[in-house]
Amino acid sequence: MIVVKIGGASGVNLDAVCRDAAELIKQGQSITIVHGGSAETNEISTQLGHPPRFLTSVSGFTSRYTDRETLEIFAMVTSGKINTLLVERLQRYGVNAFGLSGVDGRVMVAKRKDAVRIIENGKQRIIRDDFTGKVEQVNAALLNLLISTGLTPVIAPLAISTEGEALNIDADRAAAVVAGALQAEAVIFLTNVPGLLRNFPDEATLITHIDRNKVEATMSFAEGRMKKKVLGACEALDLGVARIVFADGRVDRPLLGALEGKGTVIS
Amino acid sequence: MIVVKIGGASGVNLDAVCRDAAELIKQGQSITIVHGGSAETNEISTQLGHPPRFLTSVSGFTSRYTDRETLEIFAMVTSGKINTLLVERLQRYGVNAFGLSGVDGRVMVAKRKDAVRIIENGKQRIIRDDFTGKVEQVNAALLNLLISTGLTPVIAPLAISTEGEALNIDADRAAAVVAGALQAEAVIFLTNVPGLLRNFPDEATLITHIDRNKVEATMSFAEGRMKKKVLGACEALDLGVARIVFADGRVDRPLLGALEGKGTVIS
Repeated sequence: MIVVKIGGASGVNLDAVCRDAAELIKQGQSITIVHGGSAETNEISTQLGHPPRFLTSVSGFTSRYTDRETLEIFAMVTSGKINTLLVERLQRYGVNAFGLSGVDGRVMVAKRKDAVRIIENGKQRIIRDDFTGKVEQVNAALLNLLISTGLTPVIAPLAISTEGEALNIDADRAAAVVAGALQAEAVIFLTNVPGLLRNFPDEATLITHIDRNKVEATMSFAEGRMKKKVLGACEALDLGVARIVFADGRVDRPLLGALEGKGTVIS
Repeated sequence: MIVVKIGGASGVNLDAVCRDAAELIKQGQSITIVHGGSAETNEISTQLGHPPRFLTSVSGFTSRYTDRETLEIFAMVTSGKINTLLVERLQRYGVNAFGLSGVDGRVMVAKRKDAVRIIENGKQRIIRDDFTGKVEQVNAALLNLLISTGLTPVIAPLAISTEGEALNIDADRAAAVVAGALQAEAVIFLTNVPGLLRNFPDEATLITHIDRNKVEATMSFAEGRMKKKVLGACEALDLGVARIVFADGRVDRPLLGALEGKGTVIS
């Protein structure tokens, strides 16, 4: 099993990803896809008169401020549009894709962050109406049932809370916990950069390999959204995944290339 | 197995539907839900600057003109918003709901209507960029697999064409073919009227029972969207479903009431 995370930021060559997925499945590999949707959610939120707002937590992570209205737009865009169109595209390449989110069949149960401590204008403040969460449980039995019938799960970044609320979850970290639950051999994070760069955005400073025991140290130069991918990588390693690749999603052979070692390999 | 169709028009008491569904499942019944989304798609299409347009076919049926942009909005609203929020609501009532559309795992394969003959200003014209279809095949094995693990499928009205295109399908007729494929004992069509009315909109003219051999004759007084429900009823009967109920979705016990014979029963 290989888990592929497709970034929400634009630029990923979806046709190439679907073609590679079809090729890998033909070779006998199983694939599960987890996707984001941040860029498109920003766009449609703005069009619907509810522009995106972001929070910076005290530990320095940035996340979408997800009030109930934002949650519904996020569900609409990620689970309705991005997920459906990705499943459609995979089906055209002969992959029997099956879209779902963590809300369906309680595939991902998360703990809602009901009090988020943020930094705003240099001051700390607590946000209480945020519908984001951290996945605590993956229903691997249900995913494996789908996979065993030849389906390729395509997972949108929503989970359900123990109280039954749909939650926005970070897709990078979702990919990590799904990979752990499915005992995946590798997670490929596709982005719009060639991998982890020592001096972002200088692509010549690509780090080609990181020892699995030294991943946390790379946090210091991981830029912006790459921070969450590094965090996802650490979680996946902790959950027993042997190999993580941060790879370029814009190229012709994004998955096949990543498996040949292109990008930043953590092992 | 009982198939429940929840109308896209507003007014259906979703909490009551979910509560009834939970009660029926507790009694050992299996349920599959098919929903629409026309009212909300109209609203969001308009907000996104792509207002809805409708076609009237030469045989007198009205349907949404679904160019590619409309299809993507329709997928977003039905599969992303309405489906996710319905699954969330059912989960809160203890029903392990699982949302999907016919695109997922090719659950519903449809023939695209690639040339639709319409009436416009009294003249016939052919529309060729319409992404609507008629379901020809339901993957009952996959639905039954989900159902056998205790899941309640919640199905959004999209299918995939044999060419791999996502299509807008009529939810009433989708409910009929799903019921046929699952060998359901009954289909309940929930709407915002008490049932089939001899003189629409006079609710005092409710028809309480129609003989299954006389359904087609009711077409003459079926009003607006009720025409498609009657067509759905005919299809479901042809596929072996013994009982169809057109029931009021606005009441306190919409499903339990319908099963006790409230509304228009066709048997």
